[in-house]
Amino acid sequence: MNNSKVAVIGGGSWATAIVKILSENKVVTHWWLRNQKDIEHIRKFHHNPSYLSSVNIDADIIRPTEDLELAVRESDIIFLVVPSAFVAEVLLHLDTQILKGKIVVSAIKGMIPEENILVTDYIQKRFGVLEKDIAVIAGPCHAEEVAMEKQSYLSVASEARETAIRIEKMLQCRFINVHTIQDVVGVEYSAVIKNIIAIACGVAHGLNYGDNFQAVLVSNAMQEISRFVQAIYPKERDLNASAYLGDLLVTTYSQFSRNRTFGNMIGRGYSVKSAQMEMDMVAEGYYALKSIFEINKKYKVNIPIITAVYNVIYERITPIIEFKILQEKLN
Amino acid sequence: MNNSKVAVIGGGSWATAIVKILSENKVVTHWWLRNQKDIEHIRKFHHNPSYLSSVNIDADIIRPTEDLELAVRESDIIFLVVPSAFVAEVLLHLDTQILKGKIVVSAIKGMIPEENILVTDYIQKRFGVLEKDIAVIAGPCHAEEVAMEKQSYLSVASEARETAIRIEKMLQCRFINVHTIQDVVGVEYSAVIKNIIAIACGVAHGLNYGDNFQAVLVSNAMQEISRFVQAIYPKERDLNASAYLGDLLVTTYSQFSRNRTFGNMIGRGYSVKSAQMEMDMVAEGYYALKSIFEINKKYKVNIPIITAVYNVIYERITPIIEFKILQEKLN
Repeated sequence: MNNSKVAVIGGGSWATAIVKILSENKVVTHWWLRNQKDIEHIRKFHHNPSYLSSVNIDADIIRPTEDLELAVRESDIIFLVVPSAFVAEVLLHLDTQILKGKIVVSAIKGMIPEENILVTDYIQKRFGVLEKDIAVIAGPCHAEEVAMEKQSYLSVASEARETAIRIEKMLQCRFINVHTIQDVVGVEYSAVIKNIIAIACGVAHGLNYGDNFQAVLVSNAMQEISRFVQAIYPKERDLNASAYLGDLLVTTYSQFSRNRTFGNMIGRGYSVKSAQMEMDMVAEGYYALKSIFEINKKYKVNIPIITAVYNVIYERITPIIEFKILQEKLN
Repeated sequence: MNNSKVAVIGGGSWATAIVKILSENKVVTHWWLRNQKDIEHIRKFHHNPSYLSSVNIDADIIRPTEDLELAVRESDIIFLVVPSAFVAEVLLHLDTQILKGKIVVSAIKGMIPEENILVTDYIQKRFGVLEKDIAVIAGPCHAEEVAMEKQSYLSVASEARETAIRIEKMLQCRFINVHTIQDVVGVEYSAVIKNIIAIACGVAHGLNYGDNFQAVLVSNAMQEISRFVQAIYPKERDLNASAYLGDLLVTTYSQFSRNRTFGNMIGRGYSVKSAQMEMDMVAEGYYALKSIFEINKKYKVNIPIITAVYNVIYERITPIIEFKILQEKLN
């Protein structure tokens, strides 16, 4: 039994997967979900009816709750697992002092939309959490495969080795290998950009480009991520590590990625609005795209793939034309 | 009309794709195929009946022939596109002086089996071809997508920029973007090793590992390729370029890769012999594996993935056990 008390904030598939991992390690967890019906269902039937419903939720260890403040107050370690677009709204009524001295682990792959800042920057800024108490979890990890207990790997990034190791111990289990890495900003930006690249892969697929093109697109994307991250936060890093390249691969080569599906619809001729309506949700990459594009106005890094996707999504340039231009920039 | 005279040696799908590209550029080409029936079929019906049979072979430009010596003698540039295991046999009766002053382009992703040397090393050694007259073509490129004229990319590696540019011009066309790179050894080893990694991905798939694991396997493979190639031939190179990473991706994420299929059968419990019989062919990676393993006895690079595949294929260790051990070495 792990003695830390933990809160998981969020009720989606990734949150449910993390809850499963914590439960595997017998970590007592307050689990905040927005949806009251889901909470009642979990209490009664020990399954999340909306996501990864095959996962059994151990009632002795996992405590679903509608009381966000209680969940946070009772815990030493807070896992944030809501879509980045809702982070500010979900945390709105929390006292700005409530996170002091607690460890905050972001498992979010996105940026705070209007402010164009990383989730961890937002947490530091709004709640005064210290850098040493911040960590980020990165893939490569489909929640669905965690549910099936397929061997998976997680990277825990923190600037404080001690924090990283504490989270590592909490997540390492029978089917999850965890390793630590000292590069919060790099891992976070890389995770954000990969969703944009997944949109690009979807658009290409929708336009009938093949596997040869996708391989070139992803290789060039790695170079683009490298240039961007090095410009923002220069550091010796091996971008072929799982936290960067692996995370990119699992997203861009997945048929199930929502970002790829969104891009695919755009490539096939849907408007942005109708693709979003059809999907009944907004892909993380949609917001990330705008944020990265805005941030890059300052850094002026050469990011042809992100720019092409931006032109298609926000400037409404016809995908076939934009990708004809893009294809000449790749090699 | 390109004035160079070219020979293509080989009758498989990749050879047929290269012939199609040369024909697109109106390059007069002597095309040597081993199979007499295929030659006659191509002469009569303008299609290769055995591979990429949808590709139309322009009879004004492409000259199928059974006479290897004539094809070579008449040409300035020789494209070698036979399986690496047959290179020595195919070229056996050629005069060792015949290639002097000609450019030899290897489109082979393998090593000369018994000698454990790269194809380009073999050509230099046996025929005295100068380094400046050697080039290598690398993907990422499924021949099938070239046949469909899907936008693809090729990398031409040569130590001589002039040679690389000459080949680049010959291959650049409507649906193929070519770029040059000055790293024959790196590109060639990387292309060889990717087939071994494809076997590894197949074994993992056969053992029921999922996409999360494959992403980690491929990321770790990139690090392994990097270590190996840097040990053998240290040089400043961006391994995220298409010639390295792209080529690895197109092979490891392809359901059609023969190496992946071979690995998959091994993972599912076939013996090496019965997998090979079932496939009616030997995957390139099978030989590459032995060569790389032998070469590494000298360099002693840490190559856990290649070693695991070697243990499974040549030492007959049960895949499930070998991959349990491997999974602890990845991160």
